[in-house]
Amino acid sequence: MGSIGQVTPQQMHFAEPLPLKSGARLADYTLVYETYGTLNAAKSNAVLVCHALNASHHVAGLDERGAVGWWDNLVGPGKPLDTDRFFVIGVNNPGSCFGSTGPMHVNPATGRIYGADFPVCTVEDWVDAQARLVTALGIDRLAAVVGGSLGGMQALAWTLRHPQRVQQCVAVATAPNLSAQNIAFNEVARRAIVTDPDFHGGHFYEHGVVPKRGLRVARMIGHITYLSDDAMEQKFGRELRAAELGYSTQEIEFQIESYLRHQGDKFSEYFDANTYLLITRALDYFDPAREHGGDLARAFAAARQNRFLLVSFTTDWRFSPARSREIVKALVDNRIAVSYAEIAAPHGHDAFLLEDPRYHGVMRACFEGLRDV
Amino acid sequence: MGSIGQVTPQQMHFAEPLPLKSGARLADYTLVYETYGTLNAAKSNAVLVCHALNASHHVAGLDERGAVGWWDNLVGPGKPLDTDRFFVIGVNNPGSCFGSTGPMHVNPATGRIYGADFPVCTVEDWVDAQARLVTALGIDRLAAVVGGSLGGMQALAWTLRHPQRVQQCVAVATAPNLSAQNIAFNEVARRAIVTDPDFHGGHFYEHGVVPKRGLRVARMIGHITYLSDDAMEQKFGRELRAAELGYSTQEIEFQIESYLRHQGDKFSEYFDANTYLLITRALDYFDPAREHGGDLARAFAAARQNRFLLVSFTTDWRFSPARSREIVKALVDNRIAVSYAEIAAPHGHDAFLLEDPRYHGVMRACFEGLRDV
Repeated sequence: MGSIGQVTPQQMHFAEPLPLKSGARLADYTLVYETYGTLNAAKSNAVLVCHALNASHHVAGLDERGAVGWWDNLVGPGKPLDTDRFFVIGVNNPGSCFGSTGPMHVNPATGRIYGADFPVCTVEDWVDAQARLVTALGIDRLAAVVGGSLGGMQALAWTLRHPQRVQQCVAVATAPNLSAQNIAFNEVARRAIVTDPDFHGGHFYEHGVVPKRGLRVARMIGHITYLSDDAMEQKFGRELRAAELGYSTQEIEFQIESYLRHQGDKFSEYFDANTYLLITRALDYFDPAREHGGDLARAFAAARQNRFLLVSFTTDWRFSPARSREIVKALVDNRIAVSYAEIAAPHGHDAFLLEDPRYHGVMRACFEGLRDV
Repeated sequence: MGSIGQVTPQQMHFAEPLPLKSGARLADYTLVYETYGTLNAAKSNAVLVCHALNASHHVAGLDERGAVGWWDNLVGPGKPLDTDRFFVIGVNNPGSCFGSTGPMHVNPATGRIYGADFPVCTVEDWVDAQARLVTALGIDRLAAVVGGSLGGMQALAWTLRHPQRVQQCVAVATAPNLSAQNIAFNEVARRAIVTDPDFHGGHFYEHGVVPKRGLRVARMIGHITYLSDDAMEQKFGRELRAAELGYSTQEIEFQIESYLRHQGDKFSEYFDANTYLLITRALDYFDPAREHGGDLARAFAAARQNRFLLVSFTTDWRFSPARSREIVKALVDNRIAVSYAEIAAPHGHDAFLLEDPRYHGVMRACFEGLRDV
């Protein structure tokens, strides 16, 4: 298997406002994206990769700073999503903090940084923005749309909003909506950010500060939910940082504390607080069954022409296999072609980012089986 | 079943310093306690109830403000822990914020409020303090020591430190130590408190402020872990507060958010931040196997003369049944008399506070079976 090597992100500007589900509009905006592989003459081999909370358009290869893409183990020459065959697109969603128009940019209507005034985006809004990019790239129909976690929700939403524009949906470690517990974790993280005095109602940019305390706590909470109980136990257990206990309430005693603090510190250095609020809200809001009286099968009636692969991981307690099975049932109820793999993996939700041979085998088989490409 | 009625808390002062596991000492201190029922002439019918994080000496009956004790459904005339037969003692642990000497009191050594300087207490230290109170009440041997969650750890520790002073140990919804995930949740909560600018390094009393933001977040995190995923789904699901979505990142959209914020607000009004740090640390540190090379069975060799009842709840993901089974195994390895009940209950960790007929039936049978009382 080869490597993609250095990748340069591209930009596309959209002058026409994007109508949002909330009723608001996103004024002219820019999307940052990367592509890997070559678009064929028929423009039939394009695969869109949708990102989750803490990721971007940089899916594979090396960026200018040498950072490896977040799904590089999946996407590349000879890899399961083979760039020798497919033209893969990674796009950063509006509202993110990795290049596309987001809360840290200037609101053209006011000349002021958006901050908390950036319009609330939903998964469906992102998908519409992605569809415009796909159109601008001259692609009528995607061979596949792929995503994990929140990215999986986007992959699902493609089949509901633009079913004729995608052949295969690959949704990994995802859910048809958030549970009360999922929303609860998001809400605690948001409260930590919003109540940080440095948040300044979401207009901290003007004050030259960043609500790092809140971001750290938010990330620590998130991190706990990404890992399985067992994986955390295996990796850290009750291991102490020093040889002996220090009997302190504020100093680090256990390795897990050190790890979590480090994750929180790193995250607070680069992630935008308003983006965190926006993205967790998009997660909360996703609920395709809602407009169909809570009937998920009715929601997926729109996707009768699509094919689906769902993958879940046994130790994922954030989006458990039971949540994927709800989607599978809704598809089966519609007699829609769906494959489902429940992978026994110890890593929890994070498993979707890791290179498990059975998981990647399933993904490879799915992409190899794509017809008319 | 009758009611205990109004209860007046009592106080006992201890002039002799309490040596702590950390090597420090707690200078003269006061314990607040309540008793229910009557101590018999042989002083053989005393049962000590140990409290968990957010509780106190006020176990049963009504306090001066009419508040019902936290385990009133278990303790009273004709109730499973029958005060017509037993003399029940509830005691507030040092370091708490409900009356016994704690961080909000004056350090006699400095004349200044303890704050963050209050010495770190362990479960074992609390048990030693409780043992002194029991002695002062003229009781040589307890018929039973009972507790849930952190209180269960204290009940276990009694059999390790003072095995000859207790007949029956009843440990509900507890664990032989915290897992990495348990410690992780505690650590996030502590970071939320410690990084609140109003914490002032734990000396906020002098500044006339309280780190309410941190306490709110800490409580919200805790609350999520007390409830089962299913119970939360059943109670709140994705129910909205208003008829329609408001598309806001900061306003409440879902009922679960409203509930959690309310819990956080209430808690921040009465709970002490330093107490939160101290109690979560006591949880982290509890690990009786540690001094025996990680061998829990060797730790419990000290408790050969005791009898045990362990109870766990199927949906408790904080201290899961598997953790109780570790304790049961360590006891069985020592041929110690142990009963174990795994109760199918939907409420998660909080089940230990609720009135489940099977759970209370097991508790009643245990107390009824106590001999030589």
